[in-house]
This record gives sequence, structure tokens and C-alpha cells, in this order.
Amino acid sequence: VQQLELELEALEKGGYEHFMLKEIYEQPRSIYDCFRGRLNVEEGWVGLGGIKDYERKLVNANRIIMVACGTSWHAAQVGEYLIEDLARIPVEVEYASEFRYRNPIINENDVVIAISQSGETADTLAAIGLAKSKGATILGICNVVGSSISRVTDAGSYTHAGPEIGVASTKAFTAQVTVLTLMALSIARKKGTLGESRLRALLGDLEAIPAKVEKVLEKSNIVEEVAAVYKNAANALYLGRGNCFPVALEGALKLKEISYIHAEGYPAAEMKHGPIALIDEEMPVIVLATKGTSYEKVVSNIQEVKARKGKIIAIITEGDVQVKELADHYIEIPDTDENLVPLLATIPLQLFSYYVAVMRGCNVDQPRNLAKSVTVE
Amino acid sequence: VQQLELELEALEKGGYEHFMLKEIYEQPRSIYDCFRGRLNVEEGWVGLGGIKDYERKLVNANRIIMVACGTSWHAAQVGEYLIEDLARIPVEVEYASEFRYRNPIINENDVVIAISQSGETADTLAAIGLAKSKGATILGICNVVGSSISRVTDAGSYTHAGPEIGVASTKAFTAQVTVLTLMALSIARKKGTLGESRLRALLGDLEAIPAKVEKVLEKSNIVEEVAAVYKNAANALYLGRGNCFPVALEGALKLKEISYIHAEGYPAAEMKHGPIALIDEEMPVIVLATKGTSYEKVVSNIQEVKARKGKIIAIITEGDVQVKELADHYIEIPDTDENLVPLLATIPLQLFSYYVAVMRGCNVDQPRNLAKSVTVE
Repeated sequence: VQQLELELEALEKGGYEHFMLKEIYEQPRSIYDCFRGRLNVEEGWVGLGGIKDYERKLVNANRIIMVACGTSWHAAQVGEYLIEDLARIPVEVEYASEFRYRNPIINENDVVIAISQSGETADTLAAIGLAKSKGATILGICNVVGSSISRVTDAGSYTHAGPEIGVASTKAFTAQVTVLTLMALSIARKKGTLGESRLRALLGDLEAIPAKVEKVLEKSNIVEEVAAVYKNAANALYLGRGNCFPVALEGALKLKEISYIHAEGYPAAEMKHGPIALIDEEMPVIVLATKGTSYEKVVSNIQEVKARKGKIIAIITEGDVQVKELADHYIEIPDTDENLVPLLATIPLQLFSYYVAVMRGCNVDQPRNLAKSVTVE
Repeated sequence: VQQLELELEALEKGGYEHFMLKEIYEQPRSIYDCFRGRLNVEEGWVGLGGIKDYERKLVNANRIIMVACGTSWHAAQVGEYLIEDLARIPVEVEYASEFRYRNPIINENDVVIAISQSGETADTLAAIGLAKSKGATILGICNVVGSSISRVTDAGSYTHAGPEIGVASTKAFTAQVTVLTLMALSIARKKGTLGESRLRALLGDLEAIPAKVEKVLEKSNIVEEVAAVYKNAANALYLGRGNCFPVALEGALKLKEISYIHAEGYPAAEMKHGPIALIDEEMPVIVLATKGTSYEKVVSNIQEVKARKGKIIAIITEGDVQVKELADHYIEIPDTDENLVPLLATIPLQLFSYYVAVMRGCNVDQPRNLAKSVTVE
């Protein structure tokens, strides 16, 4: 009985107008729940109990293939950057629906990772079936405990984000990225691709993420003001580079899903190979422009957009001066290790899509045409 | 002098209203020029002279990494399907702009293939520089003879499409796909992954492509009629599966580039993970629905769109009955081997974007904000 009551409580909106907003605000807690017991900064230790028996397999993997759909596919793309950069293993991210109808090349030393919030996504389940028939080792990253995917995979890690009711995924996404971060760090530690001090620094930065997400959430009024300016936009572009390119894709998907604005994500540099033709004074361009490797390049992309009179909404690092001056609007997020930026940069984009959808009178928690988990093919 | 006159002639519009239309119509010839001397159906032989010395390297490659931008990136995606399916080598396609700012993992047995029409694309050149510094073998696929990329790569194959003047690439794209087809077949032949009779059949089908492209071009009036219906659309979706997913991306890019309509390409099955929320009676959805492995799945995707009152423009195989009945409009293309469908299916999409742009009064050959070759980063 006690178990049931807890579950019912979790299913209520707890004072928030929508489940989506509640779930956005739960992220400091859900990210914490996700890494709790899985890292120890003092000892420089990180590990995922659920896949302990497959650590050697991961460390020696020739290639990691991730299969997923929708938002989980974006988390997988962030995971690609993390694992390639930190653990130095080539990662290929596949749409589950594409993977399953091909005759994919899977070798003995490849590991397949399936990612799904519900653990019931039909295409992802079918992709697992195909990979199994080829003798692959398959790990799962799911949120729903005991779900089909968690049962058919060889092993896996839960995201512990708690029930997600809003159709547009928010806290499940950041939890998936957190698990993938832990996985990358754990492989890197075993493989020796990260120095001891860098590993500790990254673990410390990860532990500090929940408090920083809290700080971003405190700026929701700024995001709401920007949303009010662009609520009638017909189109939007989202630009990012590196591990913020999938964040741009995810931001665009959120806006599409719940506000029905045609938003599209692009790697910032690809804009000049086509999409820049779309830009005029009507077009809001949301740019992930935090400090890091490609900061200067993103600044020039912003200048290109401004030269065509596009409107810039920039996500910047606290204290940034240059982009602040160029952008029409900016939202600051706290500084963190470049590998962890997606966990913070995605928050204002979730809020932006939420406020725009509410202002347009859309049904935020139950957008038209969409189901929470896609259990049909 | 004779050389110069020939070049001048090639640079003129030859009776066509725009270079783009001329170049679309040149494709039966440019595809033929691309494979001429590189295959022999009777002998079951296929080879690319320019990369002869690197054949063994390709056959034994652990992984092929393709780097490209824009339209060339879409050709690379088609190439991924071809090489994985026919030659059974894992292929990773990277945006040159992303690849160059990462610390990419390149092993001794990996081969990098750089694709660029102009051979001058700045990001692709930089990606080559980075791959070189890591000791990788780099092959090029360029159209412009003697271009920078053709000079800095270890070896390469020209596409022989002739000068392309229209900013929106058409004949260079089909020529890139043709070279990638030849490459896949040549590796497959050496590697023994294709039976002798299947190889001959594929070579014969490739040789028949120019005449089939001619047949598609004869249907331009049908495409023009459909364009007239949708010329005022604000948005469009392009859906495809398998090797027609990159064709959908390329079709959407063409419409963006020259008509400034916000078009977006999606793998058909991903639609229900978000973009389906955008669909209403105003939204034209262009679907690649030719016969093949995923035909039945595409049919159900079309039914989903129709259930939400979206308008379907389908590219179908001659003689198809099922999709013909479901679609609001259809354009038939001749039957061919499933691996070669992109070479035909892309033609009506080029024509569609051309006619829509002309009807909207856009500058087809010089779209706003775009340069023919992107020689800046």
C-alpha cells in the first residue's frame, strides 16, 4: 500500500500547471538520483552496477553501436561525443527503425547499446532482436524498471528519473545523458584513457550539475520573456557544434512536438551549405554558444545570421561578453566542463518550448498526434 | 583554343532558362560520363583507375570514414548504405565541420574519403588536414579537376559531371552517388562479398540508369503541375527509409536552398517520435515510396500522414497500385535494383524544387545568402 501511495504522489502535478513543467523542475533531483551511488569523487571511482559483468567487453570494444528513436536518439548522439572523447572507442549512432531493416555489420567485438525511456519502443525492440540474432552483446539504458527492453537485453543501467508523464521527454533525456556520462567515465577509467586528476575533476563537475541546473531553472522568467517575443514564429532554427549539436536537435524537437512550430536543428557550420537561405528578419535562430573548443567558430556563425537580419537567441556561459553583445537575447548557464555542457544547455531550451506552447494555447502534456511511447512500428 | 571553346559552350545555358534546369537535364549524360570506362558488364568488371593503388587498403579496411558538407554529405550517406550493404565494411559519415574540431579516432586500417564538388570546401580541406596528421589514408571524390582537395588527398576519383554553375547542386550529386556505387561494387568484387551473377546484374542495372533518368525527365510536366499546387506552402516534410532517407534530406535541402520554403527530411519511421505533430491539411509531405525492403512500412507511414490530413506527394515505382491510390499526387520512376533507386528518385525532387522556386519568382541559379562553393569556414 505504501508503495502505491508513493507512486500516486509521483503521478500528480504537485502544484505545477503541467506535468512537463514539473518534470523540467525535477531535473536537479532526477540527475542526482541517476548518479547517486555510482560515483565517488574522493576515491576517483565511477561504476554502473547493472553492467558490471560487461565492463571488460566494453573496455575492449572495437566499436559501440547505439540504437534509439526520437529524444533517446539525441541522447545517444551526446553519448557518442562522450565515449569517443573520453574513452576513445568509435561509436555509431543508428535510428532503430533504420538499423532493423538493414543487414547491419556487427562484429564479435562490437557492443550494441539500446536506449529508450519507456523500454517499450517497438523499433528499438526489433533492432535488439536483429542484433541478438547476429550474436551481439546488447546493453540497455531504460527508465521504466522491468520494461521489455530491460528484460531482453544482456544487461543494462536504469536512469532512475522517476515516472515521466509529459509526452515531450525532458528529465528522461538528461538522465540518459547522465548514464552515458557515467558509462564513458567508467570505461575511460578502466581503459586508462583519462588521467587520474582529470577523472576526479570530471566526477566533481558531474556532482555539481544538479545545483547548476537549479541555477538555470531560476532564470525561467528570462526564458519566458523571450518566449513571449517569438510565440508567433512560424519557423525556427537551432544551431550547435560538437556535443551541443544534438542539444540543438533536441531543442528543435521539443518545439516541434508541443508548439507545432517547424523548428529544425543543424550543426552550425552546415548552415552555409543551404539553410542560411531561409534566414530573414522573421526567423529566430537559437544558438548554443557556450565557452569551449568551437566558441570562436560559433561567434562567426552568429555574425553570418545577423548579417542576414536573423534574430539570435543565444545560450551562453555566465560572464560571456562577446556573444552577449551580438545576440538579440541571451540566457546564461553556469560554467562546467565542456563534456557536461549538454546537461545544462538543454534546460533553457526545454523551458522555451514549454512557455511558447503554453502561450499558443497548445495541450502541452498531450500534444496532437503523439503518443508517450511508440509501441507501434 | 578548341579546349577553351568547348569550355565556353559548357558554361552557356544551351536553350534552358536556368543553369540548374540545364544541369538537371544533363544527368543522363553526366552519369554516363561518370561510369564510362569504369565498368564492363560482359566481363563482370568494375574499377576506378584513380584509386587503383589503394584497392587492397580499401578491401581490408576496418572502417571507412566519409567527410563532407551539404549535398556531398547526403551523397556520402547514400554511399554508406552502398558500401555497407554490398562490400560489408562499416562506414561512418561525418560532417567535415564537426570532424575537424573533434579528436577523431582513426586507426591504421581506416580509410578516409573526402567528398566535395568544388574540391575547395574549407571545412572538408581542414578535415583532410587533421586526418593526415593522424596518418590516415585519404581518398577524394571531386568534380573539379586539379582542385585543392584532389591535390592534397593520397588518391581519388573524379565525378566527370562537367562544370556545375547552379548554386544548388544536382548533376554533381548524382555523379558522386555513381562514383560511390562503382567504389562499392569494385570493393565487393575484390572482397568476394557479391556473387558473380549479382555483380553482373547490378552493373547492367547501373548501365541502364541514364536511359531511365531520361524517362523520369520526360515526366517533368507532371512534376510542374504538382509544384503549381504547393508553390505557396510555408513548410514541407520529406520522408524516406533506407538509402532513400538521404534522398529525402537532399530533396528538402534543394527546396530550402532555392525556394526558401522550410523543408525538412526525416527517416520515415522517426516521424511518429515528434514531427508528426506538425502535420495538418496545410503540410505537403513528400514520400519516397518505391518498391523494396521497406515498401510496406512506408505505406503505413503514408496512412499515418493521411489520418492527420497531410497531403502526400509520393515517388513510386512504375506500375505501383497501392500508394497510387493513397497519395494525393504521385510521380512514377522506372524499376531498378534497390541499391540504385537514389539515382532515379532524386530527379523528380530536383525538378519539384526548381519549378516551385521559379513559380515563386526566386533567383534559382543564385539563391540569396548562398555561395557555390563554401571556401570560408
